[in-house]
Amino acid sequence: MDTSSKSTTLSSRSGICRTGLEARLVARPDGLPAPGNFEILEVAVPNPEPGQVLVRNLFMSLDPGMLMLITGESGLPMPRYEVGEVMYGDAIGEVVASADSSLGEGDLVMHRLGWREYAVAQAGLFRRVDRDAYPTPSTYLGFGLVAYVGLMDAAELRPGDTVFVSSAAGATGSMAGQIARLKGAARVIGSAGSRHKAAYLTGRLGFDAAFDYHDGPIVDRLREAAPEGIDVYFDNVGGEQLRAAIEIMNPHGRIAVCGALNRQSKAGPDGGPGDLLSVLGKRLTIRGFTVGDHLERAPEFGAQFRTWLREGAIVYDETVIDGLANAPQALLDIVNGAYTGKTVVRLGS
Amino acid sequence: MDTSSKSTTLSSRSGICRTGLEARLVARPDGLPAPGNFEILEVAVPNPEPGQVLVRNLFMSLDPGMLMLITGESGLPMPRYEVGEVMYGDAIGEVVASADSSLGEGDLVMHRLGWREYAVAQAGLFRRVDRDAYPTPSTYLGFGLVAYVGLMDAAELRPGDTVFVSSAAGATGSMAGQIARLKGAARVIGSAGSRHKAAYLTGRLGFDAAFDYHDGPIVDRLREAAPEGIDVYFDNVGGEQLRAAIEIMNPHGRIAVCGALNRQSKAGPDGGPGDLLSVLGKRLTIRGFTVGDHLERAPEFGAQFRTWLREGAIVYDETVIDGLANAPQALLDIVNGAYTGKTVVRLGS
Repeated sequence: MDTSSKSTTLSSRSGICRTGLEARLVARPDGLPAPGNFEILEVAVPNPEPGQVLVRNLFMSLDPGMLMLITGESGLPMPRYEVGEVMYGDAIGEVVASADSSLGEGDLVMHRLGWREYAVAQAGLFRRVDRDAYPTPSTYLGFGLVAYVGLMDAAELRPGDTVFVSSAAGATGSMAGQIARLKGAARVIGSAGSRHKAAYLTGRLGFDAAFDYHDGPIVDRLREAAPEGIDVYFDNVGGEQLRAAIEIMNPHGRIAVCGALNRQSKAGPDGGPGDLLSVLGKRLTIRGFTVGDHLERAPEFGAQFRTWLREGAIVYDETVIDGLANAPQALLDIVNGAYTGKTVVRLGS
Repeated sequence: MDTSSKSTTLSSRSGICRTGLEARLVARPDGLPAPGNFEILEVAVPNPEPGQVLVRNLFMSLDPGMLMLITGESGLPMPRYEVGEVMYGDAIGEVVASADSSLGEGDLVMHRLGWREYAVAQAGLFRRVDRDAYPTPSTYLGFGLVAYVGLMDAAELRPGDTVFVSSAAGATGSMAGQIARLKGAARVIGSAGSRHKAAYLTGRLGFDAAFDYHDGPIVDRLREAAPEGIDVYFDNVGGEQLRAAIEIMNPHGRIAVCGALNRQSKAGPDGGPGDLLSVLGKRLTIRGFTVGDHLERAPEFGAQFRTWLREGAIVYDETVIDGLANAPQALLDIVNGAYTGKTVVRLGS
């Protein structure tokens, strides 16, 4: 999709009555991007053609994985961001004009059209969701399903397991630790990038133990936190934390590989797990996963998540960034550890 | 168990009528062992006490994993070899005297008492096996079950998979490649340490493609052999072959980690799989396994293996080393790639 030529086409079309911001990648960085690698443009928003709807976005998701789609080295089963195109990603909005019978004005919809205030597209690209399911529509952008399938499918969580989660104060990790406990883990341990965040894990989120990964050898911190070893490691980072987890893992332990933040923040290989002698000797399983392979879990997870929220059994914290123009810097700040919980961008006024 | 003091006890006991050789570790090497790290002793063999049987061994198994039990760094769920003790391991023999009603003279039995011509122990340590199941009793020492559970349980082999096996001319690899084909793999690729062995794989064992891992970049050889990628990697070696397998692996590929020959032969870490970005992006599974966790598969595998042998569907090649005194060197020679198929030691005269 060549977005720039598309915009031109749209501008020359009759019936334009709105403008909105969108964010494009303007240069592929060598390593981590800077805000200058993005441009925020005000573009004309056309009325929907037959079969299309026009959606005004309320919130969009920021996800550290987006950085890897920028560098183009992700290896992920998603297309990289192309220079000159609007960045895609999860967003939620409401229909303001519809030319398709499947959706009506006022409907709340999720989609993957990402970094823009307005989205106009075929109705089939939008999925209507229940406006009353959550206190705020942004909750739909949460990464609870990622955490859930990582624990249930990739790590095959069993009641009584001791579970270690890295980047545990982040969007996925904060869900993973809490869901592990709710699904029967005997002990949940988290690591994060500051003592403040470690205290957040044990205080607000109810982790049994937590540590700042800067605070001495990780394997020592992990051994103190899990004197009887760990059975499951929910890996958001790789590198030294992964090697430490393997070192103290119990026989038949399972590692769900969800992210590679350590590599992302350094923009280079991180040594990985080292040789596989312990993986062999302890009969460990290391499994990469992405949520896209497990979307059939969404209804089951959604029902549980809503129950947990209603009963106060789970804490769902959000950081809300205001305005598309602030999104590029916020994306970098996530990887730099600036936020706890899920980070979303509030779009429009 | 202090074997030397036990021998003294045995020698002073009445009723000794036999002597036999046994092999002990006399020094723990720093790195790979040399034959001088072992001693072969002639010791008195007592008659069995009540509840015991006396077994004359026919064959014992050699297994590259034994080297790791010598260095004591195996991480394997088996005790390391202790200096001064007889080395344990799989062996098969026949009962020559029994003081227990469960076994009788002439019974063929398997056991784990290893590197000795005669074994005297509680009857429960021996398992009677069918003398007519295989052309030679040594076949019981084969590693087919290891290959089978690695493929079926660790790698979750599916019909149509393309399977890559490293160290494919060895005891486990030669079984793994053939069993993969018999269980429905669409294409089976093997690597080995010489062109001669690669030709053995495609010629005698019916692999679809094979290469000498010394022969240029492994990833290039593997890509030529598997132009549509691989789905399963049966890993006996680790290191560069593991990294190459990950690089060309298809999404949802599975790696069964069976051995770490690359590390064993160098006696040091081998870099492992590198960072897990591809494991994440391609949603791969890396799983260590040992046969001991899957012994419930033995009857099922045994029945299939005997059928395959009878029908000529599988080739089972053995290298037979004569005499316990030659076992230490032969163990080193396995890791150095001297043999194809299973290596056993014929004991006694």
